[in-house]
Amino acid sequence: MAEKKQLRLGAFMRPVSLHTGAWRYPGAYPDANFNFAHLKRFAQTLEAAKFDAFFMADHLAVLNMPIEALRRSHTVTSFEPFTLLSALAAVTDHIGLVATASTTFDAPYHIARRFASLDHISGGRAGWNIVTTSNPDAALNFGLDEHVEHDERYHRAREFYDVVTGLWDSFADDAFLRDAESGLYFDPAKLHVLDHKGEHLSVRGPLNIARPVQGWPVIVQAGASEAGRQLAAETAEVIFAAHGDLASGQRFFADVKARAQKLGRSRDDIKILPGAFVIVGDSVEEARARRAKLDSLVYYESGIASLSIALGHDASAFDPDAALPEIPETNASKSSRERAIELARDENLTVRQLAQRLGGYSGLAFVGTPKTIADEMEEWLVAEGSDGFNIMFPYLPAGLDDFVEKVVPELQRRGIFRLKYEGSTLRENLGLKRPPNRFFEDTEASIRKAG
Amino acid sequence: MAEKKQLRLGAFMRPVSLHTGAWRYPGAYPDANFNFAHLKRFAQTLEAAKFDAFFMADHLAVLNMPIEALRRSHTVTSFEPFTLLSALAAVTDHIGLVATASTTFDAPYHIARRFASLDHISGGRAGWNIVTTSNPDAALNFGLDEHVEHDERYHRAREFYDVVTGLWDSFADDAFLRDAESGLYFDPAKLHVLDHKGEHLSVRGPLNIARPVQGWPVIVQAGASEAGRQLAAETAEVIFAAHGDLASGQRFFADVKARAQKLGRSRDDIKILPGAFVIVGDSVEEARARRAKLDSLVYYESGIASLSIALGHDASAFDPDAALPEIPETNASKSSRERAIELARDENLTVRQLAQRLGGYSGLAFVGTPKTIADEMEEWLVAEGSDGFNIMFPYLPAGLDDFVEKVVPELQRRGIFRLKYEGSTLRENLGLKRPPNRFFEDTEASIRKAG
Ligand SMILES: Cc1cc2nc3c(=O)[nH]c(=O)nc-3n(C[C@H](O)[C@H](O)[C@H](O)COP(=O)(O)O)c2cc1C
Ligand SMILES: Cc1cc2nc3c(=O)[nH]c(=O)nc-3n(C[C@H](O)[C@H](O)[C@H](O)COP(=O)(O)O)c2cc1C
Repeated sequence: MAEKKQLRLGAFMRPVSLHTGAWRYPGAYPDANFNFAHLKRFAQTLEAAKFDAFFMADHLAVLNMPIEALRRSHTVTSFEPFTLLSALAAVTDHIGLVATASTTFDAPYHIARRFASLDHISGGRAGWNIVTTSNPDAALNFGLDEHVEHDERYHRAREFYDVVTGLWDSFADDAFLRDAESGLYFDPAKLHVLDHKGEHLSVRGPLNIARPVQGWPVIVQAGASEAGRQLAAETAEVIFAAHGDLASGQRFFADVKARAQKLGRSRDDIKILPGAFVIVGDSVEEARARRAKLDSLVYYESGIASLSIALGHDASAFDPDAALPEIPETNASKSSRERAIELARDENLTVRQLAQRLGGYSGLAFVGTPKTIADEMEEWLVAEGSDGFNIMFPYLPAGLDDFVEKVVPELQRRGIFRLKYEGSTLRENLGLKRPPNRFFEDTEASIRKAG
Repeated sequence: MAEKKQLRLGAFMRPVSLHTGAWRYPGAYPDANFNFAHLKRFAQTLEAAKFDAFFMADHLAVLNMPIEALRRSHTVTSFEPFTLLSALAAVTDHIGLVATASTTFDAPYHIARRFASLDHISGGRAGWNIVTTSNPDAALNFGLDEHVEHDERYHRAREFYDVVTGLWDSFADDAFLRDAESGLYFDPAKLHVLDHKGEHLSVRGPLNIARPVQGWPVIVQAGASEAGRQLAAETAEVIFAAHGDLASGQRFFADVKARAQKLGRSRDDIKILPGAFVIVGDSVEEARARRAKLDSLVYYESGIASLSIALGHDASAFDPDAALPEIPETNASKSSRERAIELARDENLTVRQLAQRLGGYSGLAFVGTPKTIADEMEEWLVAEGSDGFNIMFPYLPAGLDDFVEKVVPELQRRGIFRLKYEGSTLRENLGLKRPPNRFFEDTEASIRKAG
């Protein structure tokens, strides 16, 4: 029997959940944003379930919501990813640790060092989610009056990636001899000085960290624009996508894999993981009721702000308990308006329910029993909508525990998810190649290390 | 009986040791630079011995030594401090975690977030060693052609400190209500937007992290120049000093404490901890023999470079096994030349031995039995040469274990070092006040938190 295609599972973690109503859900840990004990328990539970990676998003400003909504939401603050993931590295052994870092508001020497260091500390489990940071408020915290323009950000990101990976290659894998007899700690012939002078960046090098265990930490990308897709096709090994349905997932999948092939990469060199919000119940009705309960915890004034943005039209005067009225066309994003209208119609939602949905989470969701959820996941996998998912837990700890205890065993039973970790690094578990050092030939020692 | 003045002990950690010969010392871990298991064991051992803090220096470039010396030295690379200390936070409970971060080559928003996050993860054990980064090679890794000038660096450092501490004060201690009933996650009246626009920095805020457990992580400083001392007197709570003998330690101690008093601070608000290199033996002779053995592991070509720099004169033509010849005066630093000449005379060292001493560690050292070492430490403490020490271990693990097993009990027996941790935060253990929030009155809740 040919081996079935394997699902990759990341956990898209916000300490309390990314759903703004979750902190009031029964059993929630409203203080998890700064309570390390909870995060440690989540990471260890995910590891026991054989998740590929624990992923932390990152924002360089307080979320730009109206204060009326902000004060209702636990998403206002949380741990900085590097400190958190490094701490988790010390209390886990297998799960990948993917941190977001911005190419617009940081320096490549810092980024290269931190990821290399995290990779050493974790024994080869680091991943870098490259973002250009779209929140314009971030610029104000970094000495700029306005945000760097989109194309400019992506040009810098591309150069930034070249510099960071070049710095990771500063030392050959076998540069460190540590030969007490001859007294040579490292071989200077295996040290490369980058001497990068580019359009946006000028970095001499070398890095003062040995080459990462994985050669390079796994490269992750989440950009959606043309520039974002192109950067991903050129550089990414994992893509965090955001697609509302299978058809659009398939289009994205086909597009990005074709772009990568055109660049001489293999389709398997990129794993595409759309975010999926998963609510588990013993019946579909129970799961739906849980979602309705969760959505009902979103404050109306928070939800209505999200709805108004989606519609491009002030929704605050609508009757909350009636159906969505007809809305005149505006200049605002057509797709987000249509999506909102469609959603209200498909699920027969009142204005209040629609607002609360949008103020919670309105992207791809699997809401049902372990069986229906596994069915949907398997369908995406087989139909080339994705290589797996980046799971978003609706509320914690219960939503996470439900997934781990009920859905994971169902996926394992179907033979589409691992029973044990295949390798010791994130790269090995994801089935990704170890990148050669661009400045040094592979030697026997480095091949052994790559092993 | 009045309580005796208490000694504060930091551990100035380099994974293999800061002595360049240490990686070849019998029993050394030459791979410790990137072996987290060793660092974990060191931190846990220091915690069991009730050390105040584990301190990591940081350098933003490969050390600028001649390649002939560099390739002989394990000091070429090691973990980045934030990733390492965060990982150690997860496997320790009491010991302080002091990371070095540069005000010249980083952004205050990043620094404020990381230290705040580390403080939350560790339950109030973070400290920030503020450096302006003196190594000119660092500038080349951060887009500059030459190093920022000294005074300019310190002006920026002062403003940087104001911004970082201001960002830490973004939220009142009791801003987070997490009141599920009223639906208020935090009180917007307890959120302050910094809106800093200064000479070097422009940062809007607020920080997206709750106020640190300690209010602010402990502020550490290691600058030695006039500008460095002044910054320390204004801002530092711990000073890492470098003094070769008690008399110069006393002068520095008196000077800095007087400066602080002039600024309205109390003498106890600043703890002064000179670095001390400690070698323990069962007899003084044994300890000296260990030092001679360690120094003999420094390569002559490495040592001679250090000696030439100290003398301001090329020493490579000297007879290695003869006494130091007469050296003509030069323009180079007079004090370092005189110190080297004195050292050779006092300890009757050959050129080779002197070179190897300078290539290893030539600052303040306590080399003797637990008793003689404790005598010297107590003398410094009583004579107001310092408030304690930043201990440098000559070789690891043996040098660290010797200190912990033999010297610490002797200090405890004398009643000048703790038997158990006094508080739960670094600040409490060091006997430092919790800083009030500059934007919010202390409330009952914040006072309770301050503890
Ligand atoms: C799953 C996912 C996670 C993301 N995480 C972050 C993040 O942590 N920080 C951030 O600034 N942007 C994040 N983004 C935004 C993307 O980086 C990107 O800016 C956005 O998808 C818009 O694409 P574009 O920049 O190509 O226009 C994320 C996007 C997705 C889909
Ligand atoms: C114990 C000690 C530790 C230090 N650690 C660092 C460090 O980690 N990184 C750094 O760039 N400089 C470090 N320094 C250098 C000081 O920050 C400072 O630059 C140096 O003492 C010269 O003083 P000045 O800058 O006031 O002239 C350290 C100094 C001492 C004494």
